[in-house]
Amino acid sequence: MAVLLIVLDLAGTLVFAVEGAMAGLAGGLDVFGLLVVAFVTALGGGTMRDLLIGAVPPNSIRDWRYGGIAFAGGAAVFFLHYFVGRLPGELLMVLDAAGLALFAVAGTEKALDYGVGEFAAALMGTITAVGGGTLRDVLLAQIPLVLRADVYATAALAGSLVLLAARRLGSGPRAAAALGAGGCFVLRVVAATHHWNLPHAL
Amino acid sequence: MAVLLIVLDLAGTLVFAVEGAMAGLAGGLDVFGLLVVAFVTALGGGTMRDLLIGAVPPNSIRDWRYGGIAFAGGAAVFFLHYFVGRLPGELLMVLDAAGLALFAVAGTEKALDYGVGEFAAALMGTITAVGGGTLRDVLLAQIPLVLRADVYATAALAGSLVLLAARRLGSGPRAAAALGAGGCFVLRVVAATHHWNLPHAL
Amino acid sequence: MAVLLIVLDLAGTLVFAVEGAMAGLAGGLDVFGLLVVAFVTALGGGTMRDLLIGAVPPNSIRDWRYGGIAFAGGAAVFFLHYFVGRLPGELLMVLDAAGLALFAVAGTEKALDYGVGEFAAALMGTITAVGGGTLRDVLLAQIPLVLRADVYATAALAGSLVLLAARRLGSGPRAAAALGAGGCFVLRVVAATHHWNLPHAL
Repeated sequence: MAVLLIVLDLAGTLVFAVEGAMAGLAGGLDVFGLLVVAFVTALGGGTMRDLLIGAVPPNSIRDWRYGGIAFAGGAAVFFLHYFVGRLPGELLMVLDAAGLALFAVAGTEKALDYGVGEFAAALMGTITAVGGGTLRDVLLAQIPLVLRADVYATAALAGSLVLLAARRLGSGPRAAAALGAGGCFVLRVVAATHHWNLPHAL
Repeated sequence: MAVLLIVLDLAGTLVFAVEGAMAGLAGGLDVFGLLVVAFVTALGGGTMRDLLIGAVPPNSIRDWRYGGIAFAGGAAVFFLHYFVGRLPGELLMVLDAAGLALFAVAGTEKALDYGVGEFAAALMGTITAVGGGTLRDVLLAQIPLVLRADVYATAALAGSLVLLAARRLGSGPRAAAALGAGGCFVLRVVAATHHWNLPHAL
Repeated sequence: MAVLLIVLDLAGTLVFAVEGAMAGLAGGLDVFGLLVVAFVTALGGGTMRDLLIGAVPPNSIRDWRYGGIAFAGGAAVFFLHYFVGRLPGELLMVLDAAGLALFAVAGTEKALDYGVGEFAAALMGTITAVGGGTLRDVLLAQIPLVLRADVYATAALAGSLVLLAARRLGSGPRAAAALGAGGCFVLRVVAATHHWNLPHAL
């Protein structure tokens, strides 16, 4: 079980790193820039969470495997972007939704472990999931996509809230995590395939 | 007295949140983006201060009332922007100057409570007051307004310095805070009504 | 020796502050903005490192000399930009390379002092050296230069790795620092004079 969790976490890191590096490629970065953006996209959200809850040094720099995986994702895009760029968009979307769900749940749980309240834990889950993409867009001098479009951060927040609600209703931690991750994943995939957007004020 | 301080602090948070959300509206954000920008504008400065002085988790995530007020300000803009956008600019400017003064003084005092020196306390007061607006502009991919125009951050710094000078000269903490806040408020309002700007190098 | 180190560190801070303020000048900032960008460029990297390794309050706000030097650099640009702008580019490049080497080595060493592993120490050295310039570009709403062009961050990383390798091979800390700083400096100067760039993916 613990091994499965680490594998899932590293898999989510890899997916986010690849997406970050693809965005960096479109922004004209060199190979060092790709590695940095891969790292920031994959690990920036967790790093923000760790700084906010006081878990220093953050996991991203304490455990070299995360950085290694993120850099591997960036290097893969540098060498193989011809192939990575041809992966079907649906596959990337589903993998990204899985990473989002995983990060939202893992971020919420780590925040709870550090003794913060439920309000803060829901914020931390959302920041873990979308903080890296936000930093990536800031580095690329763009308004972060999560602020403008798509049920994306909303899905992360929903997953975090489902986890917290399930715990309150007496569910075990494992079932609560599965419910939260499942809720986030399904909401994100359905929203993406149906092009749901949050309302803009008129 | 303590109740009055909390009410003032929450009022300042609300004003900054509304201003942040109005900027987000102009940037084309959806409802989630408005809530995020409201939160960041209202609480980003205090969060930066808390991270820098080692007060983790920061107040903004430890006490749900601040986040709640910030989100309420964002939601108010989403639902009521027709009316909020028609509030007289002078009213918003005066409320904003009040928030600036309050945040500068509160930030300076919290930093002193955590035992940093006077130089750092003045920096922390200024960051508390203008850090949120700076982060807002970074998220909206703009050069932060406080770096380019207006006697704004300068007023926050002046208020912080007045507070520190008053304490050095033997004033009680309450009087020093009132002097600092009053100085910042008056300087900001006078500067705004007279269109004072800091010099640009030629 | 200790005095020499502090002098070198303050000199590096001054060079970076001047460069930051020159960039701010080109971005149309007022005098307050110049001081902020000078501070952020010179001390932002070290502040990020200190937050990540848990050294709070960061050096930049604990020791007023660093902030004082950074502000002095910003003020010098404001008053003397006619002359500063006419300094030969080669001189600025060499001074900047010296600052880069110094910050990379100092950042790596401080991280090691705080007990992080070698992977993290190399990251921290690089962040110390290029984090300030990255924040400067983010504040000026530009894609950070270090992500796009030049063997710059790469030189910082190389210096950090040389230091770590020398320590592993049994070198004393002083010799390791000298080797790391020398490696970074030479690589940066050679790269700049030969217009070396890292490859961009095609």
